[in-house]
Amino acid sequence: MSAVPGRFLTIEGIEGVGKSTQVARLSQGLNERGIAHVVTREPGGTPLAERIREIVLSSDDARGETLPPTAELLLMFAARAVHVTNLVEPNLRAGRWVVCDRFIDATYAYQGGGRRLSADAIGRLETMVLGARRPDLTLLLDAPVEQALGRARKRNAGAAADRFESERAEFFERVRDAYRARAAAEPDRIAVIDASQSVDRVATQILELLEARSWIS
Amino acid sequence: MSAVPGRFLTIEGIEGVGKSTQVARLSQGLNERGIAHVVTREPGGTPLAERIREIVLSSDDARGETLPPTAELLLMFAARAVHVTNLVEPNLRAGRWVVCDRFIDATYAYQGGGRRLSADAIGRLETMVLGARRPDLTLLLDAPVEQALGRARKRNAGAAADRFESERAEFFERVRDAYRARAAAEPDRIAVIDASQSVDRVATQILELLEARSWIS
Repeated sequence: MSAVPGRFLTIEGIEGVGKSTQVARLSQGLNERGIAHVVTREPGGTPLAERIREIVLSSDDARGETLPPTAELLLMFAARAVHVTNLVEPNLRAGRWVVCDRFIDATYAYQGGGRRLSADAIGRLETMVLGARRPDLTLLLDAPVEQALGRARKRNAGAAADRFESERAEFFERVRDAYRARAAAEPDRIAVIDASQSVDRVATQILELLEARSWIS
Repeated sequence: MSAVPGRFLTIEGIEGVGKSTQVARLSQGLNERGIAHVVTREPGGTPLAERIREIVLSSDDARGETLPPTAELLLMFAARAVHVTNLVEPNLRAGRWVVCDRFIDATYAYQGGGRRLSADAIGRLETMVLGARRPDLTLLLDAPVEQALGRARKRNAGAAADRFESERAEFFERVRDAYRARAAAEPDRIAVIDASQSVDRVATQILELLEARSWIS
């Protein structure tokens, strides 16, 4: 066990902005610098939390039963409680970095902005589940909705859409607005990155952000 | 659709007090009087909520991963949000009675009393998920823990215990105490019934309680 706790990095953004690619590039960059880390995602990240993820993402059509927005919100936080307790905290305590594809800001963006659930309710659940734990740095990959969704549709051609992928552009406009509002309110923690740039340019900018904080060299 | 909303009855108590038997007897009594009703249970009651139930009840051993108490609480309320929205409310609105094996009081008893989670946190989730909806009448089947657990163990002989069944007697003493404290605080809604009496005597007392309210004759 290291005396220095690991850094907690989260990557956020709507479908199609290139999160998975940038998580992989960031992991490669950390490996090249010998920084021990785990890559994970929400909802999910552990076998138990992935079981909750399946329930959240399976489409209403496939289920023949609607998932009410409040139930979706509670499942997201249940999965988060499992993930944080069983994976995020133990790794950070052991000195490993944690790189997470989506985290708390996604709840404010999707369930708050997208589904219009109250930010107060989300805030109370955040306190209950996270206590004082917050990401050390959040990278918000931002691009116009039409551009991002076009990329997501191309990638998923032929595959069945999950409950979020089947939402309309107007839903994702609200999600994007909520993400940007979070970034404006917490500029020190959340860095907005123009995801319409090339993959290489985005990957370089992310590493530069870590260098500027003297977390890597 | 009836102009008269249905009655919402819940049956509560620890393992082995005879809830399932009394739910069946009550249903039979309602059928004999031509009262349209549905019998359901928590956690669960709909296909989607039953999927959440499976996650909550599967033992930590079977999962190889611990379910943190806060996650358990959030899953219970997620399943409840699904159940209330998709089954309880539509049936009550249609004039049918709903007879539910465990409901909100079980959360205060098991997650509050048993797991020692804060009643404040439970109360906030209750408001978020139930709004003003509460049972019209709750039947608390009460018996000494050793007697009830002895009956439950006999019934389950040879079967694997779920996460709650594998708790110790001391856990169920806390659950029973929390149930009785709820009943003392809300005597008009919660009727305590001595479950150490014969099955017939308990069934008769339950019907007498409904007659006393002029809900049946």
